[in-house]
Amino acid sequence: MTDATVTSPRREATRQKLLDAAAQVFAEVGLDAASVEAICDQAGFTRGAFYSNFESKDELFLELAGRVSQERVAAVRARVADLEAHGGFATVSTDALVIVQQVLDISADDRLAILLMSEIRIHALRNPDIAAAYLAQEGEMLESVAQIIEDIARAKMLTFRVDAPEAARLMLTVWEGESVRSAMAGVDFAEMCRRTSEQVARVAQLIIEPPA
Amino acid sequence: MTDATVTSPRREATRQKLLDAAAQVFAEVGLDAASVEAICDQAGFTRGAFYSNFESKDELFLELAGRVSQERVAAVRARVADLEAHGGFATVSTDALVIVQQVLDISADDRLAILLMSEIRIHALRNPDIAAAYLAQEGEMLESVAQIIEDIARAKMLTFRVDAPEAARLMLTVWEGESVRSAMAGVDFAEMCRRTSEQVARVAQLIIEPPA
Repeated sequence: MTDATVTSPRREATRQKLLDAAAQVFAEVGLDAASVEAICDQAGFTRGAFYSNFESKDELFLELAGRVSQERVAAVRARVADLEAHGGFATVSTDALVIVQQVLDISADDRLAILLMSEIRIHALRNPDIAAAYLAQEGEMLESVAQIIEDIARAKMLTFRVDAPEAARLMLTVWEGESVRSAMAGVDFAEMCRRTSEQVARVAQLIIEPPA
Repeated sequence: MTDATVTSPRREATRQKLLDAAAQVFAEVGLDAASVEAICDQAGFTRGAFYSNFESKDELFLELAGRVSQERVAAVRARVADLEAHGGFATVSTDALVIVQQVLDISADDRLAILLMSEIRIHALRNPDIAAAYLAQEGEMLESVAQIIEDIARAKMLTFRVDAPEAARLMLTVWEGESVRSAMAGVDFAEMCRRTSEQVARVAQLIIEPPA
């Protein structure tokens, strides 16, 4: 896969437009049915512009998936920073469910994100290159989540039964599993938030060492 | 979807042959590319025979997915029964990892099972009927796993921090998440078993109340 690092601002703008268009087309018809032509039409670019920016549709969707997870992590980070700015974690409940509800970002377009990640996963299971890229992305996301968990633990003087990377892995796995279940159950946004937060909090409760 | 309960033995045999053929075709070309024609050719049946047994390819794959999960649960049950037959759980270590390794079934064809479940999941996310059927199947599997967990807990006099259904849900979610990760990483069978057992055991360790 081509290196996704930024070149010129103009080129980057083109990449972004193609990524936005792809997200749109994907939401409408799904990854398999989403053609490069449809993405180019949506973005208002030629196929030449597409292939000068992405080697393949797979590469574009992988980058899109990466962007989605980065946005997720950034949103959680923002909430954590916001909490610290407003009196810090001292004011935050020690109840795991409350903490999770306060910092966990469950955005309204999660259904799209879930579909996207699920589709990328299928492709990754069949394609070693996509798998390697997907696992690398997940690794970065896990590191970010582990860092957030460590920050919260330090701020709230919590001790864990497992280390932060392990906690991040468990919580992310449960977050994904429950998100998919909720999306399948077709529950509304509020209920999806409730179920996902509840499950992630349950893991957090298991991970947090009760105060002596 | 048509009721999958057995009718005549001959009819059931036809259903089984179609399911076996579908598993084969699926493994070769994937769910989307697997045509009803290819499945019928593989099974040596006409499309008429197919459609007199299944409403659609989706229904067949859903039943196949159900069979895969039932086989999984049955394999775990068999291991538990085997342990009991040989001195019972008294002889089993209280170490969660050892227990999990002793009862968790990770069969060599898990990669196919993972692909199958992942594909069904995508379809379920896009189709409410498939979603409902998938969630019903998962519910049955969770009940079976919860029962197994309760049996082991009783036999080994373990107490849990969460109830058995919740424990089953967490362990199954982690089992699935780690299986997919291992399959993506393309690790060999032994390593896949090691990673999956390790992750499930980690959850078990968090769930099991340490002896006072």
